[in-house]
Amino acid sequence: MYDVLKTINSPADVKKLRAEQLETLAQDIREALFNRLTKIGGHFGPNFGIVETEIAMHYVFDSPRDKFVFDVSHQSYPHKMLTGRKNGYINEECFKDDSGYSNPNESEHDLFNVGHTSTSISLASGLAKARDLKGGKENVIALIGDGSLSGGEALEALDFVGSELKSNLIIIVNDNQQSIPEVHGGLYQNLTELRETKGKAANNFFKAWGLDYIYEENGNDIQAMIGVLQKVKDIDHPIVVHINTQKGKGYQPAEENREAWHWCLPFKRETGEAKIRFPAESYTNLTAQYIMNKAAQDKDFVAITPSMPALGGLTPDLRAKLGKQYIDVCIAEEHAIAMASGIAKAGGKPLVFTGSTFIQRTYDQISQDVCINNNPVTIVLNFASFDSLTDVTHLGIFTMAAFSTIPNLVVLAPTSKDEYLNMLDWAVDQKNHPVMIMMPGNMVTSRPADKDYDKINTFKVEQAGEKVAILALGDFYQRGEDVAEKVKSELGFIPTLINPRFASGIDEQLLSDLMKNHQLVITLEDGIIDGGFGQKVAAFYADKNMKVKTYGLKKEFYDRYNPQELLEQLGMTTEQIVAYVKNISK
Amino acid sequence: MYDVLKTINSPADVKKLRAEQLETLAQDIREALFNRLTKIGGHFGPNFGIVETEIAMHYVFDSPRDKFVFDVSHQSYPHKMLTGRKNGYINEECFKDDSGYSNPNESEHDLFNVGHTSTSISLASGLAKARDLKGGKENVIALIGDGSLSGGEALEALDFVGSELKSNLIIIVNDNQQSIPEVHGGLYQNLTELRETKGKAANNFFKAWGLDYIYEENGNDIQAMIGVLQKVKDIDHPIVVHINTQKGKGYQPAEENREAWHWCLPFKRETGEAKIRFPAESYTNLTAQYIMNKAAQDKDFVAITPSMPALGGLTPDLRAKLGKQYIDVCIAEEHAIAMASGIAKAGGKPLVFTGSTFIQRTYDQISQDVCINNNPVTIVLNFASFDSLTDVTHLGIFTMAAFSTIPNLVVLAPTSKDEYLNMLDWAVDQKNHPVMIMMPGNMVTSRPADKDYDKINTFKVEQAGEKVAILALGDFYQRGEDVAEKVKSELGFIPTLINPRFASGIDEQLLSDLMKNHQLVITLEDGIIDGGFGQKVAAFYADKNMKVKTYGLKKEFYDRYNPQELLEQLGMTTEQIVAYVKNISK
Repeated sequence: MYDVLKTINSPADVKKLRAEQLETLAQDIREALFNRLTKIGGHFGPNFGIVETEIAMHYVFDSPRDKFVFDVSHQSYPHKMLTGRKNGYINEECFKDDSGYSNPNESEHDLFNVGHTSTSISLASGLAKARDLKGGKENVIALIGDGSLSGGEALEALDFVGSELKSNLIIIVNDNQQSIPEVHGGLYQNLTELRETKGKAANNFFKAWGLDYIYEENGNDIQAMIGVLQKVKDIDHPIVVHINTQKGKGYQPAEENREAWHWCLPFKRETGEAKIRFPAESYTNLTAQYIMNKAAQDKDFVAITPSMPALGGLTPDLRAKLGKQYIDVCIAEEHAIAMASGIAKAGGKPLVFTGSTFIQRTYDQISQDVCINNNPVTIVLNFASFDSLTDVTHLGIFTMAAFSTIPNLVVLAPTSKDEYLNMLDWAVDQKNHPVMIMMPGNMVTSRPADKDYDKINTFKVEQAGEKVAILALGDFYQRGEDVAEKVKSELGFIPTLINPRFASGIDEQLLSDLMKNHQLVITLEDGIIDGGFGQKVAAFYADKNMKVKTYGLKKEFYDRYNPQELLEQLGMTTEQIVAYVKNISK
Repeated sequence: MYDVLKTINSPADVKKLRAEQLETLAQDIREALFNRLTKIGGHFGPNFGIVETEIAMHYVFDSPRDKFVFDVSHQSYPHKMLTGRKNGYINEECFKDDSGYSNPNESEHDLFNVGHTSTSISLASGLAKARDLKGGKENVIALIGDGSLSGGEALEALDFVGSELKSNLIIIVNDNQQSIPEVHGGLYQNLTELRETKGKAANNFFKAWGLDYIYEENGNDIQAMIGVLQKVKDIDHPIVVHINTQKGKGYQPAEENREAWHWCLPFKRETGEAKIRFPAESYTNLTAQYIMNKAAQDKDFVAITPSMPALGGLTPDLRAKLGKQYIDVCIAEEHAIAMASGIAKAGGKPLVFTGSTFIQRTYDQISQDVCINNNPVTIVLNFASFDSLTDVTHLGIFTMAAFSTIPNLVVLAPTSKDEYLNMLDWAVDQKNHPVMIMMPGNMVTSRPADKDYDKINTFKVEQAGEKVAILALGDFYQRGEDVAEKVKSELGFIPTLINPRFASGIDEQLLSDLMKNHQLVITLEDGIIDGGFGQKVAAFYADKNMKVKTYGLKKEFYDRYNPQELLEQLGMTTEQIVAYVKNISK
């Protein structure tokens, strides 16, 4: 088992291998991928499809002198195994040593922490530019998937390197004919033409940017890949190496269903069946139900996603049913949002959904195209909670604070199934505000909720009390309930419990009223405190007679933390909060 | 004077004109442009170059049924004159009625408030999509300049419409061979080829996206433009109409120096000389001096701008001197920042500069590519003050708050020439932090300043006092000095005056120390209060015995305001602040 892989301690060891050993190495790597992914899950298709390419990269080039940049970097597992990190794949005890992305803290062979798409060409061009300033001669290689190419950052970079960078830069375009779901967009028609003509089509997307170009049909053939990379090694200008690969190569279920196997939970190899089951009712599935019902009832409604249909629960069959009421723009958040503004302006009802961490890719469009124009676009964000994704590149904890600085944008933080659905209904149908809704990360709970949110920034008193008011926003509302309960039982009075609902502003009247019989206001939010909801409350009371304590996350790039432990570190467990109240009430 | 223009009250009147009257109309429009621009300035080249196109658009299409979207929209003046707003150009008393951008509040012929580039194709595709959902038949036309094409948002949109929108959309690409300065990037090589072959080059940038394409060489010929637009009217799929125009057409200085005449101050028509002179010493010029000196001394240094060299004072001769130590990426903020991260990673010293309002176009790259990786990129922002630009699309007041939510990013707000230059020196040479520097908008002043900012979030006590502490950030420091002076003279005690310098964090030790002999802390910041500096201070003291009053702008899309009047409305004049202190000190 892993006979060849076990001999690889650095890329130098790869270079010593004979052709047939390289083939065995590829098998070993796939076995190691199975070992890790069946047990802890991770990105499947991208890694299985790129094994031969990354072996060839290390065979031909000389990392870390030559510099590799991995786009998104969720396809860097084979590279990791070849650069001293095989234990993270073959030895279960070491799984946690390796993140699921390239990571400079792990190895000098990793240059960037990368988790968002479309970054590699820009980052690599910077490495190349610095090399040129310093008079270096190393190769700089960006590896980017076809799905990542549609992002504005990658396209801007193609434009730049097409004419401005007149030195070595090798862009490997890994064309596996797939984004996360199927690809969408004109450039993919051209990639198809290029594949069908073995790179000879008259109209060439890459040459149109001024780039040199070479095509390799057999991207899953180590010797073919070694051949093409040897050709471009030490080239004196930027070139695109367009390679054709099979996503999920080596595992039939993944080859056949590339969308489902982009990423996987722990699974049984024999059947492909996931070892973990989620409850049937989830906020993601509720979103899908809402979208399907709304689309059926309202022909003006359209759901839009930048390549993230699963984050709205839209399986391929549901997408097919939606027909023209569903748009996947591929990875193109800026276009998704600006187009939605145009749709809203013309009387349509656009709902854009994606992951919380990705919405910052379109900050300017939300501000300028949508909010200055006050067009009623609804944005729904999944993975918005501090405990939904814990990789440093995928944290949802910054969104509420960052987007609450944009005027006109109404940021809503629902606390239950009923409130979430009512907010969706209201947001999509009203015509007066752009709205961002943070999808709860908690288990689905039910509780009566208002239907009308026209009175912006009206907080809801869920329990009227005295002395202490708890403003528990969105996902942390249940935590607020727990605190309120414990304050009552342990301290002997009934505190006020408030569901703010609106994260982007404050209810000044209510906050003023609280001053009559409260001495302390506690804010709880599932996001960073800096610039967040609690600081708005603190600022309101800052020159008045009211103490405020703000609870939330620190402004920090947390990475792969245990959520419960983090809460304790931050002094945010129910017990810790109640202890604070007890102490200050003395 | 304006004989034909005076007859135009709506686009219907344009359609009635004979060919020679249309020519006179073009002359009238240029005269009207001269009338407004010589007196109040504005965008010159873009409007003079597009007169014939916009006449032809209104002649051929039927606005507002047919829908025009203007990219950046600083070229929409002729359109405005043809849609009932000629008085904003021919009658000085009405100049203020019209903004310098398209504006739905002015006219039903304007669909969006637009001031940032690269938005039109996305916005227009949204109008087209809503039309298709509703079963409409109108034409949707986007007008975009070649300079705007390089932005990610526009490129993402080309990809989408190239294959996904299978209905009417007419994209007029106004190719005047110019961005704000000269264009940079591979796509411009292709545009050159297309112009040289009258649209027949084998490799076609637009066709590579799957788009239909037609070329018109004579974009400044009304009849030629009418001809080509009549050809594409009511087309059933997206098409690019690539037109060749002369930027600044009709005014020799502007035709000869397209960069200088992109935008103009009030000027004398005979000579082109500006009627307003700025002081020779400005923060912009100081930036240029810094860049030139640094580049000469340090071969690792490189200045980068997304098409905004003037915002760093870099005239064409200075850029030529910088050679490979200067990069203009064209309008491509995302690439500029990500490339800078790559440069910094490889040991270079990148300084990226642009306007404050534009930096939000690259929010994700600053967060992910730069800050998660903690690469030492320096970002310098011009027009960062509430009184530098007052158009709603160009406000600099949101930046400090929005970017202070990103971990690792050090946001600096200098208060004098010395401090600004020392901060630049420190930021560019240090290796530990990404740094954003808000260029002061005030007149240049001099005052001793620290050289070392390694101790992040260390505030500077400029005057030690008692009772009241004034934390006056960046551009509002001078206002803090005035308040301190007046408090002393009117209230009879010496307040503490603090120059925070760091906008992205607080000096907890200093804030704690203030509690010994102060009862009130005042924060002043040149930006919105929501999520800003003052709220961090307020939150720090929220459960302690200290009153805090935060002064700053409201979270609001202000438009074309008088800065002094706005300060009064906000209660932020020196007198008003001192009155507050007097009142609370009673």
